[in-house]
Amino acid sequence: MNKEVIADRFRSLQDFITERLEKIDGTSLFQEDLWSREAGGGGRTRTIKEGSIIEKGGVAFSEVFGEVSDVMKRQMGLDGESFFATGVSIVLHPRSPHIPIIHMNVRYFELDNGTFWFGGGIDLTPHYIVPSQAAAFHHSLKGICDQYDNQFYPKFKNWADDYFFIPHRNETRGVGGIFFDHLDTTCGLTKEQILQFCVDLGEAFASIYEYQVEKGKLLEIDSNQLKWRNLRRGRYVEFNLVNDRGTKFGLVSGGRTESILLSMPPEANWEYNLVPLEDSNEAFTLLNLKKGINWI
Amino acid sequence: MNKEVIADRFRSLQDFITERLEKIDGTSLFQEDLWSREAGGGGRTRTIKEGSIIEKGGVAFSEVFGEVSDVMKRQMGLDGESFFATGVSIVLHPRSPHIPIIHMNVRYFELDNGTFWFGGGIDLTPHYIVPSQAAAFHHSLKGICDQYDNQFYPKFKNWADDYFFIPHRNETRGVGGIFFDHLDTTCGLTKEQILQFCVDLGEAFASIYEYQVEKGKLLEIDSNQLKWRNLRRGRYVEFNLVNDRGTKFGLVSGGRTESILLSMPPEANWEYNLVPLEDSNEAFTLLNLKKGINWI
Repeated sequence: MNKEVIADRFRSLQDFITERLEKIDGTSLFQEDLWSREAGGGGRTRTIKEGSIIEKGGVAFSEVFGEVSDVMKRQMGLDGESFFATGVSIVLHPRSPHIPIIHMNVRYFELDNGTFWFGGGIDLTPHYIVPSQAAAFHHSLKGICDQYDNQFYPKFKNWADDYFFIPHRNETRGVGGIFFDHLDTTCGLTKEQILQFCVDLGEAFASIYEYQVEKGKLLEIDSNQLKWRNLRRGRYVEFNLVNDRGTKFGLVSGGRTESILLSMPPEANWEYNLVPLEDSNEAFTLLNLKKGINWI
Repeated sequence: MNKEVIADRFRSLQDFITERLEKIDGTSLFQEDLWSREAGGGGRTRTIKEGSIIEKGGVAFSEVFGEVSDVMKRQMGLDGESFFATGVSIVLHPRSPHIPIIHMNVRYFELDNGTFWFGGGIDLTPHYIVPSQAAAFHHSLKGICDQYDNQFYPKFKNWADDYFFIPHRNETRGVGGIFFDHLDTTCGLTKEQILQFCVDLGEAFASIYEYQVEKGKLLEIDSNQLKWRNLRRGRYVEFNLVNDRGTKFGLVSGGRTESILLSMPPEANWEYNLVPLEDSNEAFTLLNLKKGINWI
């Protein structure tokens, strides 16, 4: 299977997802920004803002290639000379504190030496954790994983717990999800099957998020909840800029900054040493930002 | 000179500065938070918020000691077994976009093997660059430096240009200032003189900032300027979390997160690919966020 076929499938996935998200939002439309990269390739970045549901979001497709740079060799441990990479990345920051922030990414990487792998993940970051919604989210992911390998969900769920973790806060970013990397045919699936697994995740993404939106969108909002939303967005910023290996690698390796930082919220707040009131919904959320919770 | 003497001078500096800043603000007072560190030492963190001038700010004193950990050995290249460190750190986020963000830090570090050094810096981050105010700022710093060594200002000014730089934005954080590290008696000054240089900087800090406040505080503010202020604060967050070696080291080495992240703004915004209008004040500012400008 040609790498162009994979890029085409990912490009179609971006179309499918942006169309569905526009329907879910009902007000704002995505704006498209085409860019090219001097060293090879480019991307199609779609952003949405000031929607009824989505305050700021991005669905980015890219397809880049070129020489394996020294920083890639060092930081990714690569031994090839040239690479090809394509993927779709999404982060959505909803307006309502009762709708979670969501992230999804699927990606494919290959080297001129013949090695290739897929990676990806979906994770959910509720401003207020609702266990039944976290369970529904994980249930959907498990359903997709189980169609391919019933070891995928437990393995990728733990991987997400470890990856989406903020050590300096001793908090997970949210209720986790799944994360995987370096997935190749040694897992027992064919290349086509792994691609289909990624596409299935991407296609399920819109429905998965729609469910979360429906659950939260009619709930009333007060100013304390908006303040809490912005503080949680601050934690999202901290994770992405301090801990997220993808973001850090992108920034130091000369990636396109505006695409990498699509994940930033429209607005984030910080307050010194804020401790939520005992038994509040905020305290309940903090208490559940832990690794190893079986949400299902 | 005993290390306790140095810590006492820094503690007094914190008193001096917080008292002056409360007068400059005129409304809010600092809240004090005493903390101790399990591995040795502690600090006195003072924070101010929702003032007439200062929307969020911190003036932190700390005095910590203990074993040199593996991460310190690796990242700081230290060869001692135990250390002592004390310092004062300040970041102030003003309410008005016409008043700059300011940062100051002075610090002392010693090892059980007898080596010691001082470090520090002051830098100014205007939301809107006003060359005459940048010049006044640099002039004050040069005046203090020149009392000790007329090579200090040019050397430390360039160091600040290099340090307070955001590679992924190709922008300096602001109009720079001075930055120095590993300053010891090999510079030709005695230990007492280097300490006095740090104290002089700290004592001048309040007057230096007061000048900037006076220049900006009566200017009218519109909603576009507030939006721009928040976008610039977003860049401040990016620098601190992605590029600032002090912040990164503090977070990975298990420092006190709330003290390290005192530098975060109360509120910051991000917008995809924002390009200011040609010939606007915003465009003028971006054009001047460059290394190597001789503001004096």
